[in-house]
Amino acid sequence: MKALLDAMGGDNGPETFVEAARRFLRRHPEAEIAIAGPEADLRAAVGGTRVRGLTIVDCSEVVTPGDEPVRAIRQKKDSSMVRGLTALRNADADFLVSAGNTGALMSGAVILVGRIPGFDRPGLSSVIPTLDHRDLVMLDLGAGVDIKPRTLVQYAIMGSVYARTVMGKPRPRVGLLNIGTEPSKGDRLRREAFPLLREWDGGEDASFTGNIEARDLLGGGFDVVVTDGFTGNMVLKAFEGTGDAFRELTRRGIRSGWFSRFGGMFAGSALKREFRRYAYQAYGGAMLLGVLRPVIKCHGNASAPAIASALEVGFRAVEGDVTGLIENALEEVPNGDDTRNA
Amino acid sequence: MKALLDAMGGDNGPETFVEAARRFLRRHPEAEIAIAGPEADLRAAVGGTRVRGLTIVDCSEVVTPGDEPVRAIRQKKDSSMVRGLTALRNADADFLVSAGNTGALMSGAVILVGRIPGFDRPGLSSVIPTLDHRDLVMLDLGAGVDIKPRTLVQYAIMGSVYARTVMGKPRPRVGLLNIGTEPSKGDRLRREAFPLLREWDGGEDASFTGNIEARDLLGGGFDVVVTDGFTGNMVLKAFEGTGDAFRELTRRGIRSGWFSRFGGMFAGSALKREFRRYAYQAYGGAMLLGVLRPVIKCHGNASAPAIASALEVGFRAVEGDVTGLIENALEEVPNGDDTRNA
Repeated sequence: MKALLDAMGGDNGPETFVEAARRFLRRHPEAEIAIAGPEADLRAAVGGTRVRGLTIVDCSEVVTPGDEPVRAIRQKKDSSMVRGLTALRNADADFLVSAGNTGALMSGAVILVGRIPGFDRPGLSSVIPTLDHRDLVMLDLGAGVDIKPRTLVQYAIMGSVYARTVMGKPRPRVGLLNIGTEPSKGDRLRREAFPLLREWDGGEDASFTGNIEARDLLGGGFDVVVTDGFTGNMVLKAFEGTGDAFRELTRRGIRSGWFSRFGGMFAGSALKREFRRYAYQAYGGAMLLGVLRPVIKCHGNASAPAIASALEVGFRAVEGDVTGLIENALEEVPNGDDTRNA
Repeated sequence: MKALLDAMGGDNGPETFVEAARRFLRRHPEAEIAIAGPEADLRAAVGGTRVRGLTIVDCSEVVTPGDEPVRAIRQKKDSSMVRGLTALRNADADFLVSAGNTGALMSGAVILVGRIPGFDRPGLSSVIPTLDHRDLVMLDLGAGVDIKPRTLVQYAIMGSVYARTVMGKPRPRVGLLNIGTEPSKGDRLRREAFPLLREWDGGEDASFTGNIEARDLLGGGFDVVVTDGFTGNMVLKAFEGTGDAFRELTRRGIRSGWFSRFGGMFAGSALKREFRRYAYQAYGGAMLLGVLRPVIKCHGNASAPAIASALEVGFRAVEGDVTGLIENALEEVPNGDDTRNA
């Protein structure tokens, strides 16, 4: 198994990516990682000791966060991202992990790696930590806006495969993110998608459980939650913003007086430990589902452990043949409002 | 100044509403409150002592949370909600506060009280606490889904009037809730609304500042944030859910060992104090903007202080003539994608 790790375009330097590769290779001595970026920088980050299983793919260009996605993919042929996607297409690597420009990575995955036939568009998925520690996978988090109702069924199918194979949930419960639990709730997209999801009903290996409100997401009880990319991105960022706010409120509370400062000396580390699982920098990787090979996006400022866990996501996706299973799941897609093939 | 307080249809009993009325009347001895509900229950809640300024409107019916909104308004003529809305229309009261069925209250406000001419539809607004303690008003939180781009400009105008008069912000900064800051970001609605908002630009008494991401909402820097009712409701509930989750994580952290329990004895109350401002049960009232008289919605399980603060919102809205100013602000509305009058 070979991973392609794009070491450029994130907020952190090559050291972070090399450290992530080291961590991953310690856990999987049989795996290989090709790390893409300027060779000199990567050599310096690796240092004197040779790392078994790690090779360097020298690239001269970088796709920056400000780059226009499609143009960057077409023009920056020698960037670590384009080189990585090309390696994936040519089967020189089994999966790709990148912390670079999200839009460029998603466009590049469609242009260079290709969509799974029959699926309208890929969905960016991420595992969301829940209070019952069972976690859930939510998609789409920003790959597609203004989608069709049937696309939500496709997301449900892709998410269910992911939950079964990567998360080890035998019969995932699928929910439609909505502003109320009744089938009649929501905007036109939700009202039209609900009967399609009911018709699909989860097939043999999943079950459609109905609408779920954003308030109940973290409480647990669902394994897969589907929504359009606009809403998904919005809700994910609302979670992140509120998490940051509560961390700040906790700091303020503890610093507000001598009593609370004293208390913070004893309770502070326990609070930090509880909050850590909900830090988005630690989420690991968001897998782009619906393209022919696994592409995993890390947060721009992902730490080495977070990138290592993104590599782990890719490893498990390849091992469980997520993309193959999604391809086979196509017969479950109801026609929806249009023909199956967009 | 006379308030109509709908004491039915919320999670709490008449005592909570009577207690809220007492609190409000202590602060505003010149005001009057007519409280609507079954007379016997309300008399029992008031007890032996007469409350100066408080009168009872006897009603035999209740609009329940499960009622179909429009049908409930048309059929339950003797419910506290319909009696309250009718009193508002007939100018027997200056504003209405209710913790009942949100959909019924919003439909009823349009049917019985009436829209301000020229505005497509009302927007449910709420003050969101921010970390810099300047707070912001966000709308719409669920009154309208599948709206037109120009409706977002109307929300911006209504929100700006609210921010100036009720929140005392002389020149509010208005933001469009979106999944990125660049004008090209978002779904079709956002991309089409952006240039309309830019054209409006805030008029003389506000300024359009651009897109704002959900992650940055609580950080401060904006006074008015506009979005469609689906997204607004989703983001508000994501905030609520995350807030609940962090309260739970804090409890778990403190209970996780002897050290942290000891720390919690000293820091716990300071944390509670900081978190309290972000408890949605305490938000006070969500004002429905765009109808001819102030209608304020409380959370279903609002406490007496929260209901009293909703009464305060209504008081300030009447004092500041929010609805009159919104009516006058009509000339600021650009035509958008259609004629001005829907």
